[in-house]
Amino acid sequence: MTELKKIIKEIKAVDYEWKEKARNHFDNLTMPWRSLGELLTVAEQLAAIKETLKPSVKKKVLVTMAADHGVAEEGVSNFPQEVSSQMVRNYIAGGAAMNILAEVAGAEVVIVDMGVASDLSDLVNTGKILSYKADYGTKNMTKGPAMTRKQAEQVLQSGIDIVGKLVDRGVDLLATGDKGIGNTTASSAIFASISKLPVHKVTGRGTWIDNIALENKIRVIEKALEVNNPNPADPIDVLSKVGGFEIGGIAGVILGAAYYRIPIVIDGFISTAGALLAKELAPHSVDYMIAGHRSVEPGHQLMLNYLGLKPLLDLKMRLGEGTGACLAMNIVEAAAQIISRMFTFEEAGVSRSTRDFK
Amino acid sequence: MTELKKIIKEIKAVDYEWKEKARNHFDNLTMPWRSLGELLTVAEQLAAIKETLKPSVKKKVLVTMAADHGVAEEGVSNFPQEVSSQMVRNYIAGGAAMNILAEVAGAEVVIVDMGVASDLSDLVNTGKILSYKADYGTKNMTKGPAMTRKQAEQVLQSGIDIVGKLVDRGVDLLATGDKGIGNTTASSAIFASISKLPVHKVTGRGTWIDNIALENKIRVIEKALEVNNPNPADPIDVLSKVGGFEIGGIAGVILGAAYYRIPIVIDGFISTAGALLAKELAPHSVDYMIAGHRSVEPGHQLMLNYLGLKPLLDLKMRLGEGTGACLAMNIVEAAAQIISRMFTFEEAGVSRSTRDFK
Repeated sequence: MTELKKIIKEIKAVDYEWKEKARNHFDNLTMPWRSLGELLTVAEQLAAIKETLKPSVKKKVLVTMAADHGVAEEGVSNFPQEVSSQMVRNYIAGGAAMNILAEVAGAEVVIVDMGVASDLSDLVNTGKILSYKADYGTKNMTKGPAMTRKQAEQVLQSGIDIVGKLVDRGVDLLATGDKGIGNTTASSAIFASISKLPVHKVTGRGTWIDNIALENKIRVIEKALEVNNPNPADPIDVLSKVGGFEIGGIAGVILGAAYYRIPIVIDGFISTAGALLAKELAPHSVDYMIAGHRSVEPGHQLMLNYLGLKPLLDLKMRLGEGTGACLAMNIVEAAAQIISRMFTFEEAGVSRSTRDFK
Repeated sequence: MTELKKIIKEIKAVDYEWKEKARNHFDNLTMPWRSLGELLTVAEQLAAIKETLKPSVKKKVLVTMAADHGVAEEGVSNFPQEVSSQMVRNYIAGGAAMNILAEVAGAEVVIVDMGVASDLSDLVNTGKILSYKADYGTKNMTKGPAMTRKQAEQVLQSGIDIVGKLVDRGVDLLATGDKGIGNTTASSAIFASISKLPVHKVTGRGTWIDNIALENKIRVIEKALEVNNPNPADPIDVLSKVGGFEIGGIAGVILGAAYYRIPIVIDGFISTAGALLAKELAPHSVDYMIAGHRSVEPGHQLMLNYLGLKPLLDLKMRLGEGTGACLAMNIVEAAAQIISRMFTFEEAGVSRSTRDFK
């Protein structure tokens, strides 16, 4: 058995008894019954993942993975391919949305080159980004598989390895992010393949392409699925045929989070495509996922339905990079602090509700 | 003209040209067109309020106002009246939800006794809370006006005065919060009076009262409106007849925020009742309001519709105290940082979209 298979096999469901313990604890805190809504649901999940009523999410890390897509040459984005590497350099300079939102969340940012179609070795050599480069971009999936099966397994393993290193450094909460011109196209293709939904239902405007470009994008995805015929029962086959290096990497990070029992905030459309692959490989990995926000991409809500996740935020965002996940990390922090620190009625000397909710 | 009238008269609309300037600025930042959604809308509002493209919301203050309600004796809550003062003491001890969420937001907490039905002078004398006590609780509004017209004017002025002092201390962003057993009843009565909606449409379960208690609560509000016949065209009359000291105080804080041009995050149902009064007194005050979240109280969305506000969060909360506003303050901080610090395409050396959105 490969290391990847072994890790996937060892991913376990969270202990539901800890959710129950958290729920009982909340009944004693100084507030009307369950009046903090979804904040309590997140806190229960944290308690179950970390098996404690005082879960800490202090050390936060956003892992943003970048790669290029051969399918970009089909005109599926408003931006030229060079923007992937230009934006990686923008991250290092600190001027992108994700830098600012990570800082507001108190999260460290780790940038990973999973397969950008440019030489980023100057950034790798100076320790500014990690390199798990599988290649200089995927192949054009309308003409054959985006990557080899070996590459697909490799990027999954890379994601897991990165989490392993972050665990050694004491990470408490992870978040995912992406960069890659053309990656909403790959994400829609992955979701269409796994869900068997028609392509037009799961394909959106990405960088806000116009109607003609959207029609083209749908045809491109339909062609890629026709040419490659990915097997929905084999997520690694789906990833290799119509996926992307950063999407596989994100799936790996999520598998790693589940394996090492770290809660992980999923960003938008591309990250959730990674989450779909993770779920198909290890169904219990969903227990460790927190959906950060609902993206404007119309397929995103369908993906969340498929995963059974409810997003924390709905701010009409569609930027990626981990921006939605960063905003949501603050809510996860709030949930962790509420369960860990709020006083009980007894501790605070406050009279209880006259209605019994038991 | 009284000071109150003068201040209300001087509340001006924000300058829409600054919204336009902010919008043009966003078109140059390194992201797909308007891809940060509502975050940009908030940033535009901050720019217009503060008349700058680098608005700071660094110094945050949550003002939580507490008072008691004579109508509590009609059995409209699951909690006894003593809980209002017990919770104020819990705030000082730091064990309540609002303490924790304010800390996560990086906000200072200011607690104000607007009219709690207990002696809190030990906390006032030691500087732990402010006192603008109008009385030891309002009168039972099913039997006559909740307060005198003079008291109503006084609590509005108190809220304005508090903001004046916070402005002297450099506040950049305000948030509202409430505590007062019985105050969803007063809030529903205010809204029913102003909106002319039927009472049952705007009345909810508050501390999660059961069906029988809910029916009673609706009858209590209907009776209060019948007995007092408040004049919807005269918000001070509405406040005095069916309002509460903390609700009037919150309306005053909002008027003060608008007068001093400070953005203010409105919490849930009770705070929004205060916002309704502020709007009726000074329609332009709405320009300074940011709706923090949507409460589970069914009337809250109707209130937000009336104000034309869209809440930032929808986490099924219904706790009050300023908890929803605190969670939202982090999003406001994110919006301020995005507009102030993100790089333009030129600064970052990133290629622009090939589609022109002008």
